[in-house]
Amino acid sequence: MWKVTEDVLLPIATGAGILGTGGGGNPYIGQLRARQAIRKHGPVTVLSPEELPDDARVVCVGGIGAPTVGIEKVRDLQSYYALRAIEDYTGEKATALISNEIGGSNSVEPLIPAAMAGLPVVDADGMGRAFPEFQMKTFFVYGVPCCPMAVADEKGNSVIIRETITPYWAERLARATTVQMGCVACYAVAPMTAEQVRRTAIPNTLSLARDLGAAVQLAQANGDDPLEAILATCPGRILFSGKVVDLDRRTTAGFARGSVTIDGLDSFGGKRMVIDFQNENLIARLDGTIVCTVPDLICAVATDLGEPVTTELMRYGLRVTILAFPAPALWTTPEGLATAGPGAFGYETDYIPLEL
Amino acid sequence: MWKVTEDVLLPIATGAGILGTGGGGNPYIGQLRARQAIRKHGPVTVLSPEELPDDARVVCVGGIGAPTVGIEKVRDLQSYYALRAIEDYTGEKATALISNEIGGSNSVEPLIPAAMAGLPVVDADGMGRAFPEFQMKTFFVYGVPCCPMAVADEKGNSVIIRETITPYWAERLARATTVQMGCVACYAVAPMTAEQVRRTAIPNTLSLARDLGAAVQLAQANGDDPLEAILATCPGRILFSGKVVDLDRRTTAGFARGSVTIDGLDSFGGKRMVIDFQNENLIARLDGTIVCTVPDLICAVATDLGEPVTTELMRYGLRVTILAFPAPALWTTPEGLATAGPGAFGYETDYIPLEL
Repeated sequence: MWKVTEDVLLPIATGAGILGTGGGGNPYIGQLRARQAIRKHGPVTVLSPEELPDDARVVCVGGIGAPTVGIEKVRDLQSYYALRAIEDYTGEKATALISNEIGGSNSVEPLIPAAMAGLPVVDADGMGRAFPEFQMKTFFVYGVPCCPMAVADEKGNSVIIRETITPYWAERLARATTVQMGCVACYAVAPMTAEQVRRTAIPNTLSLARDLGAAVQLAQANGDDPLEAILATCPGRILFSGKVVDLDRRTTAGFARGSVTIDGLDSFGGKRMVIDFQNENLIARLDGTIVCTVPDLICAVATDLGEPVTTELMRYGLRVTILAFPAPALWTTPEGLATAGPGAFGYETDYIPLEL
Repeated sequence: MWKVTEDVLLPIATGAGILGTGGGGNPYIGQLRARQAIRKHGPVTVLSPEELPDDARVVCVGGIGAPTVGIEKVRDLQSYYALRAIEDYTGEKATALISNEIGGSNSVEPLIPAAMAGLPVVDADGMGRAFPEFQMKTFFVYGVPCCPMAVADEKGNSVIIRETITPYWAERLARATTVQMGCVACYAVAPMTAEQVRRTAIPNTLSLARDLGAAVQLAQANGDDPLEAILATCPGRILFSGKVVDLDRRTTAGFARGSVTIDGLDSFGGKRMVIDFQNENLIARLDGTIVCTVPDLICAVATDLGEPVTTELMRYGLRVTILAFPAPALWTTPEGLATAGPGAFGYETDYIPLEL
């Protein structure tokens, strides 16, 4: 058990910005919003999955939409409204909240309703990274129902996705609702049991985000290499390093989609990397050859400071280093790959596990 | 009180096809579906609003989507699923059903869940014609809440629009849901009281549709003029008569939108009428001058037989007569016109009441 106080929000946001593989919503804005809630309502308790009471009712909350819109239309209390809507619909009160993804602002989104409602959050999430689509959660891959879920906007509109034939249909219906709501909304899924959380969540990811961010901060303060600090905290490797020379990014159908082209610098001079993204980075090609794919993590950080460069902040001229981390084991099973492997995004390539 | 038996379905569909001003879904397919339900489950009782018990709980059910899609993707039991979903959500059982609009297939849509559930239907509807958008119902204009409502598809997906800041937001969210569901779905609105039905519904419209259709059938059988028979049953007038020479119809954003151009024949020779539609006919221009607008009814019928020509069946070469009928009085108040007058569809013209 630990507490999320104001001072750990920035490390969490930095770490989750890295783990978010470009998506999850802008981490800086997310931590500002969480800071406001914690300043007003007090720190939020974090429980590991094992510390959850066996009769816990754990509601997954998150933001949905395009991160390119979320930096202009900042979220308000939508996740709290969604929590109350699903509690009202199911007739059950949440006793803890959990992140849908440990990426960007979604890593801290549950802290806002948790602070407001006086609830703890779980040190775990449903992805161990970020993914663009609702159904891409280990919860649903391993049998937790994805419905009913509530979707709420900032104006007072709310929708219950009551029943769907597959988790993908929940995504379709929630996405269309979100687009109507201005491409920025929040959702809350019907409560899970402690057993379901322990069996299907990716554990200890809020701590990992915090530790990653703290390592970056410390390296910056000591003049050490922040990239080394990241890789020492979370095993992975450097895929590429260079300068952004082209960016094709459009906000369409409720997502930010496109690709970024990076020309190599230093030891990568003369080479070129192109990364496709749908909110999150999906596929990295080095001189035309695929070198990393979902569900492995493809993460862009600023080469000098190690700060995450998320999809909505990517721009021409940035010096970025592309880090890769292996996907959590729950994603590399046949069920996991069917939901969030390259084929789930329309790529014909097989998943080739990252070698460290 | 009367009963809807198989033999009155065709007259109702014909009459509702005329009153539907082009929309409401294909009336012939609608009556085939209702026939199947009545054949299996027995006739459906029709109660006038006055005959409703004071403690009645009346659920409005209807189809939503584009009629151009509905003739290819025929509805199944979506309205029954939507009824059960809203009953489940509100915890209240319906004791009667009511049409959302007395247009096209929507006039008979409630008969399907009514037959299945053994419920009566009310001889009334929420429009006294058809309109393309969900919020355009006298119920909501005069204070009945439009939410919660359920939207269901044929596959097993269902959504509750739980709370919206305006009835128009219910339309936006339900339409986006419907588009995802394949542009064909059904909905059910939370129960109304008998008092609400008596105060806000357009009464006796199912009887009117039946009588209109019967008059057309009789005129056809006797070799009389079916247009005269229509106008003798429902006061209105002939706006135009001619041949369809152009049709611009596209299925977009969940609607069939476009315009039809008719060149005059006989006493209308040398003149041209252009009618804009959004599922339903909205504005009629005679040689460029607006001669009839929503909420007055602009209805196309086949000149020879008096059968309705709905939006999805309109085509080049048809000989059609355009009839106009005055809107029900509940639509020509300031509140009514704000919801379904020309301005509600983006036209700058004022509503000029039809003169008979």
